[in-house]
Amino acid sequence: MTDRPALLLDLDGTLVDSVYQHAIAWHKALELAGIKLSVWRIHRRIGMSGGLLADSLARETGHELSEKDAAKLKKAHARLFAAQLPDVRPLPGAQDLVRHLTKMRVAWAVATSGALASAQPLLKLVNLPPGVPVITRDDVAHAKPNPDLWIAAALRLGVPIESAIAVGDSVWDLLAARRARALGVGVLSGGYGQDELERAGAYRVYEDAADLLLHIDELGIRAE
Amino acid sequence: MTDRPALLLDLDGTLVDSVYQHAIAWHKALELAGIKLSVWRIHRRIGMSGGLLADSLARETGHELSEKDAAKLKKAHARLFAAQLPDVRPLPGAQDLVRHLTKMRVAWAVATSGALASAQPLLKLVNLPPGVPVITRDDVAHAKPNPDLWIAAALRLGVPIESAIAVGDSVWDLLAARRARALGVGVLSGGYGQDELERAGAYRVYEDAADLLLHIDELGIRAE
Repeated sequence: MTDRPALLLDLDGTLVDSVYQHAIAWHKALELAGIKLSVWRIHRRIGMSGGLLADSLARETGHELSEKDAAKLKKAHARLFAAQLPDVRPLPGAQDLVRHLTKMRVAWAVATSGALASAQPLLKLVNLPPGVPVITRDDVAHAKPNPDLWIAAALRLGVPIESAIAVGDSVWDLLAARRARALGVGVLSGGYGQDELERAGAYRVYEDAADLLLHIDELGIRAE
Repeated sequence: MTDRPALLLDLDGTLVDSVYQHAIAWHKALELAGIKLSVWRIHRRIGMSGGLLADSLARETGHELSEKDAAKLKKAHARLFAAQLPDVRPLPGAQDLVRHLTKMRVAWAVATSGALASAQPLLKLVNLPPGVPVITRDDVAHAKPNPDLWIAAALRLGVPIESAIAVGDSVWDLLAARRARALGVGVLSGGYGQDELERAGAYRVYEDAADLLLHIDELGIRAE
């Protein structure tokens, strides 16, 4: 399995342009729960599991969230994000990238910290070819930055995680990749700075899916 | 005038938490004009003059905007941003910082690339003390990254721009500061990464107004 690495792709901020809407939705949901936080601090947590995000932000602001509060918060976020769904678009190159990978018969999968219910309308935006494994929050014990999602995706593909490339827009994707022993690659399309992603361990940082596709040879993904 | 530097403060992303709402508003306005752009690319332009932003984004996507189109685009942005105004909050420490500067009798002013009409409701959020000069897009020929706004603010205060400190959240604030020969200082509260602001010439980067206030001695702004 060393001739061609498998590609594991994050969803929000990597294939779909949804990170800013997520940040706004969390900002409103947190405020409804009495937690005041600047949007940029929330932005920098998008991509981690919703539960961990809620817990960590509550802790930093001196709140303590009961399990009931956390569930309510996550529900409010889901509702406020859904209200913005009509404004969410696929990122440039996302549809081309997934088509190309499938055409090249590269082993590839999607792995997202979101729940399947929230991921489904986003996956529709990128015209996911049939048969591509999608690993969501519902399939693992812990979402990113735990390594579970990337590892589960590699398992589903039947490839060793050590030879897989995990692509994401957030430092949580990259921390999860390091913990999973996968090679991490970053994209700027979630709004992080290049340096932040490199410091978190990204081997390469591309602007977005279109830029990654243009430079896919740099990742050692050659034609069959 | 060398004993205590004057402080020139940007508004959006520096005193008020409005950058993400601006990015979403521009995204929708551009789409209405037939221009498709990822939100992160728009985010990285917030803080420059609206006209320049519209022109540069149109050019990069291969559109050409007539003066009428550009005016329509700016109007759509203003309308879509105004719809989100109820969700915009002052940034942590903004009210304390402006109160503190006035109490310390530091010469200080606000300089924003926005028009006075858009700035007014935002200025209310930070309880601007009476008599503080506010320089807006309407007062100068060119907004940031041109140096005009910072220079006009120093002129209004009657201080030499070379001894003033210009604080902003975007690389456009810092480019304008360099061109004006002021000392640039960055804040992370607009969602840029620290490295991006340092590379653009920030002498120091603080998390937000609260963090800047805590470290104000590092800027050489001593008590009288």
